[in-house]
Amino acid sequence: MLKNDLFLRALNGEALSRPPVWMMRQAGRYLPDFMKLKAKYDFFTRCRTPELATEITVMPIDQVGTDAAILFSDILVVPQAMDITVEMKDGIGPWLPNPIRNSKDVENVVVPDVEDRLHYVMEAVKQTKLALDDRVPLIGFAGSPWTILCYAVQGQGSKNFDLAKGFCFSQPEAAHQLLQKITDTTIAYLKAKVRAGVDAVQLFDSWGGMLGEVDYQTFSWQYMQQIIDALKEETKVIAFAKGCWFALPNMARSGAHALGVDWTCSARNARYLSGGQITLQGNFDPSRLLSPIPEIEKMAKNMVDAFGTQHYIANLGHGILPNIPVDHAKAFVNAIKSYNA
Amino acid sequence: MLKNDLFLRALNGEALSRPPVWMMRQAGRYLPDFMKLKAKYDFFTRCRTPELATEITVMPIDQVGTDAAILFSDILVVPQAMDITVEMKDGIGPWLPNPIRNSKDVENVVVPDVEDRLHYVMEAVKQTKLALDDRVPLIGFAGSPWTILCYAVQGQGSKNFDLAKGFCFSQPEAAHQLLQKITDTTIAYLKAKVRAGVDAVQLFDSWGGMLGEVDYQTFSWQYMQQIIDALKEETKVIAFAKGCWFALPNMARSGAHALGVDWTCSARNARYLSGGQITLQGNFDPSRLLSPIPEIEKMAKNMVDAFGTQHYIANLGHGILPNIPVDHAKAFVNAIKSYNA
Repeated sequence: MLKNDLFLRALNGEALSRPPVWMMRQAGRYLPDFMKLKAKYDFFTRCRTPELATEITVMPIDQVGTDAAILFSDILVVPQAMDITVEMKDGIGPWLPNPIRNSKDVENVVVPDVEDRLHYVMEAVKQTKLALDDRVPLIGFAGSPWTILCYAVQGQGSKNFDLAKGFCFSQPEAAHQLLQKITDTTIAYLKAKVRAGVDAVQLFDSWGGMLGEVDYQTFSWQYMQQIIDALKEETKVIAFAKGCWFALPNMARSGAHALGVDWTCSARNARYLSGGQITLQGNFDPSRLLSPIPEIEKMAKNMVDAFGTQHYIANLGHGILPNIPVDHAKAFVNAIKSYNA
Repeated sequence: MLKNDLFLRALNGEALSRPPVWMMRQAGRYLPDFMKLKAKYDFFTRCRTPELATEITVMPIDQVGTDAAILFSDILVVPQAMDITVEMKDGIGPWLPNPIRNSKDVENVVVPDVEDRLHYVMEAVKQTKLALDDRVPLIGFAGSPWTILCYAVQGQGSKNFDLAKGFCFSQPEAAHQLLQKITDTTIAYLKAKVRAGVDAVQLFDSWGGMLGEVDYQTFSWQYMQQIIDALKEETKVIAFAKGCWFALPNMARSGAHALGVDWTCSARNARYLSGGQITLQGNFDPSRLLSPIPEIEKMAKNMVDAFGTQHYIANLGHGILPNIPVDHAKAFVNAIKSYNA
């Protein structure tokens, strides 16, 4: 039995005295102990070594005190397992030397046996569950098919993912074939993670906000929906689509247990657009953790006032930034934990 | 008298048989003749030489047939005139070697005599008006104070402008001092452009969507409002804030004559959020110009169906991309011009 199950109870829509809190990318570069491991081991070594992934995942539970752990990994381990080469370059970020640009490239992409190719993730889940010792639940995650396509086609991060969008709009058949392959892999991957022990999963559609409403439905949401349909009976599912306020009405009807919201969608707009019933998660502006601590505390309290304590999981609106002082992150987490206290 | 005044009549809210159409960045890199000039003259030479700016501005009127011209220039000529060094680096874009990071840096920023420091812009306006020979109206533009602060502090383009936001959130007094200096300069600059002959002005808040609703009001919109207040009696003002759907209700009450909308905000949402009366401008996804021509034509028609022919200016939702075939741009423009025909 979990000692702190606030997070899962919020996903169940149970009545709570205060909202649970965690932070996207909480196992990340703002933590000095993470930076020590980063200096010793390269990015994918950290992902592929269960002992390292476990140590990193547990770090923010010990050091910041969040109500949930999220497995240290990367959305790009999925395309890697599909025989798309992914490197991590200093100062650039993800780098895919052989981007996908046509239907022949798509044909070369495999739908792998995830238990084999991503065995190291399942092993990390098992070790992390042991290390957590039932203190808090463990979240597994995957990128959305659209967001993975963005990297697979563009070949790197981008302000507008113009090549990825151009691929979808000029070669839609190839794009849908690729999206379906990613979807099938992701479903198998998340099911394997659930079997390995995660308590919930989150889908990250980091680049959904590049698309208009109709194109979002066509190139992103229909695949997110397939994943939710396949997972929702087996575990709790959170769908987070950055910049996709316009999709909240659809998302609220999807069967997902909670929806992530970024800071450009106010609590009031998010509750209105999502119909007022579903659990929402978010939406503190990560840059606002650079404010002085008293201001962080005040704004965190205002956020809970606005979302309400029920059907709500406090979080940032996107990943925590590397330059956030740990004390500021703690002040945010503690402000939520002492709400109503 | 203008031979084609559709654009100005849409800004006046007059009844029209079809909407006017122009494209943000229409005087840009998708035009082969522009690329020839780009090969011969560097970026700021093109901005600072009235003959070149005139030739580039008139190019899309001759070659694509839009209903308005927009003066070739850059939002960063304003910080340049304020003694902030701005360079344009190949493959990087804007590069500011001495970014603003504290109140001392802000104190060194001057509010210049724009007629002196930006004389070349006024000269380009005059020459362009002559070259246009009253065929279509001429739009002048400026970046929003927030968007200029983003570059001035970050020092270059960015996915999240974390340094710019960090500056605002940790040193708000210095930020507001800088924003006011940019605002004062921009008001003088746009008034000078109106005196020189532009028929309307557009404010570009390209990075407004980095901010949440409250921070947007504090760090961007209040300065946009000052500029609108100062200009609205002298000329027509269009306010375009990318990613700022949440601000449309406020923007609609600002006195601006039209509001720009990006493609993530559907016509229906934009009409609803802006109250249904004000002229809207937008919002074709620039990447959608990579679709096959028949699809562009169909989607352009659908866009006018959705916005309606009245109180509407057809445009893209952001600047045209360099890799758009000219034929595709023409197909978009012609689809609007033949609407109802």
